[in-house]
Amino acid sequence: MVFQANNIEIHIGDTANFSKTISEYDIYSFAGITGDFNPIHIDGEYAGQTVFGERIAHGMLIAGLFSNVIGNRLIGPGSIYLGQELVFKAPVRIGDTITATCRVIEKREDKPIYTLETIATNQNNEVVLSGKATVIKKP
Amino acid sequence: MVFQANNIEIHIGDTANFSKTISEYDIYSFAGITGDFNPIHIDGEYAGQTVFGERIAHGMLIAGLFSNVIGNRLIGPGSIYLGQELVFKAPVRIGDTITATCRVIEKREDKPIYTLETIATNQNNEVVLSGKATVIKKP
Amino acid sequence: MVFQANNIEIHIGDTANFSKTISEYDIYSFAGITGDFNPIHIDGEYAGQTVFGERIAHGMLIAGLFSNVIGNRLIGPGSIYLGQELVFKAPVRIGDTITATCRVIEKREDKPIYTLETIATNQNNEVVLSGKATVIKKP
Amino acid sequence: MVFQANNIEIHIGDTANFSKTISEYDIYSFAGITGDFNPIHIDGEYAGQTVFGERIAHGMLIAGLFSNVIGNRLIGPGSIYLGQELVFKAPVRIGDTITATCRVIEKREDKPIYTLETIATNQNNEVVLSGKATVIKKP
Repeated sequence: MVFQANNIEIHIGDTANFSKTISEYDIYSFAGITGDFNPIHIDGEYAGQTVFGERIAHGMLIAGLFSNVIGNRLIGPGSIYLGQELVFKAPVRIGDTITATCRVIEKREDKPIYTLETIATNQNNEVVLSGKATVIKKP
Repeated sequence: MVFQANNIEIHIGDTANFSKTISEYDIYSFAGITGDFNPIHIDGEYAGQTVFGERIAHGMLIAGLFSNVIGNRLIGPGSIYLGQELVFKAPVRIGDTITATCRVIEKREDKPIYTLETIATNQNNEVVLSGKATVIKKP
Repeated sequence: MVFQANNIEIHIGDTANFSKTISEYDIYSFAGITGDFNPIHIDGEYAGQTVFGERIAHGMLIAGLFSNVIGNRLIGPGSIYLGQELVFKAPVRIGDTITATCRVIEKREDKPIYTLETIATNQNNEVVLSGKATVIKKP
Repeated sequence: MVFQANNIEIHIGDTANFSKTISEYDIYSFAGITGDFNPIHIDGEYAGQTVFGERIAHGMLIAGLFSNVIGNRLIGPGSIYLGQELVFKAPVRIGDTITATCRVIEKREDKPIYTLETIATNQNNEVVLSGKATVIKKP
């Protein structure tokens, strides 16, 4: 079994996913890369006084998990993002295990452009993030 | 525009930005958080044979810069992402300096919900990423 | 196409690989995790006076790439390392692109235990690391 | 045993060790460097259903601690790995304190090549990893 998503044909309905328990390290690293030091993410005292009750993950960090599924599992090497729509539904807390799932819902006839449904759920099967991705697969 | 304290009123047209030179470290860390090891991001030999000619940044990493502008500069602490639409326009290479700019284009009367235009440009003023964010500001 | 290496049967001769350009960040992070601050890895002045002429990657960092191939690609989730023999053949420098390849060479009849040939090569097809892994696949 | 300067003679029986409490950060960083996102390491829900009951460290991460002992403490700067044999004996969980110990068991007469016994134990003195290293000491 060679891992070669590259030459596998992609069909409508094809699905792949990736799961990760979100750690404090993930949030702090993401803050360090993007500079998003919103206290809701990195200040436990502040976050403790909000409706969330504790620090929560950056929404865009969770969205990054779709990028993994698309680039490594569903569409594979050569896939390039054209667009992504995101609707943030529920907070992700440290220790939540998030499953990012992508499913091919459209395929253009003229070009290798795919529309994917993108959904992230937590360990209780609550949707935390939903949306749609558009991806082209370069040869 | 200075860092807004929590109690400053937000108006249509308000704008803030953040600039960063994207480093190999940023890309490798983002891969490490999300698990997106698509070779276009971390394999120079592979990337060298693509139209990009070299490794490029994850699109969602660049989108994360909007999260910084929103949470730290334009809407400030208390801002929570409701949604984000992204259109990826051009690749970002190691060493490119990206400026993420957000501008308030709509403001709801009944709730502290804002629509923002979100644009990222490189050092040559090319748009690399555009879109719209919807954000609520919690007290 | 669902990524489910878990229920795919594994045969002798099955092969998978993973490639990554080794960055300064990789070496510095690995030093930070393991505490291996041997100057050959993180002191450019010292390394410049050795036969290598510059800082080189930790051998065990390169060996870690086999772990990726085994756990994510060849044997898949549920695979647990039983043993690994490593022979370090050539130095890996910052910017080298390493391909870690694993191939199933033995399969026990009584238990899901596999012996794998493990070889890492650089962009010039020089073998930098070779050896054998023994892995069990838990259900 | 103190940190050996480069010019101290090495004898059979010389021993050095290094201890570290393994953190979630260590595991997540190691995954980020190597790309090994095997769910047993980074997915708490998945790991909770295995015999381990929780996420465990990458075996090769623990092996990296030998690299520290060899390069910084026992053989010192100038030491280069020639080979390493590893036998993984028991899982390492987040919060376990691992002591990596290396002992010189052979010394070539003609060249500065040393064979070391390499053993890692946890806080309960269980051996989690054993093996042998072969190292050359460059001037």
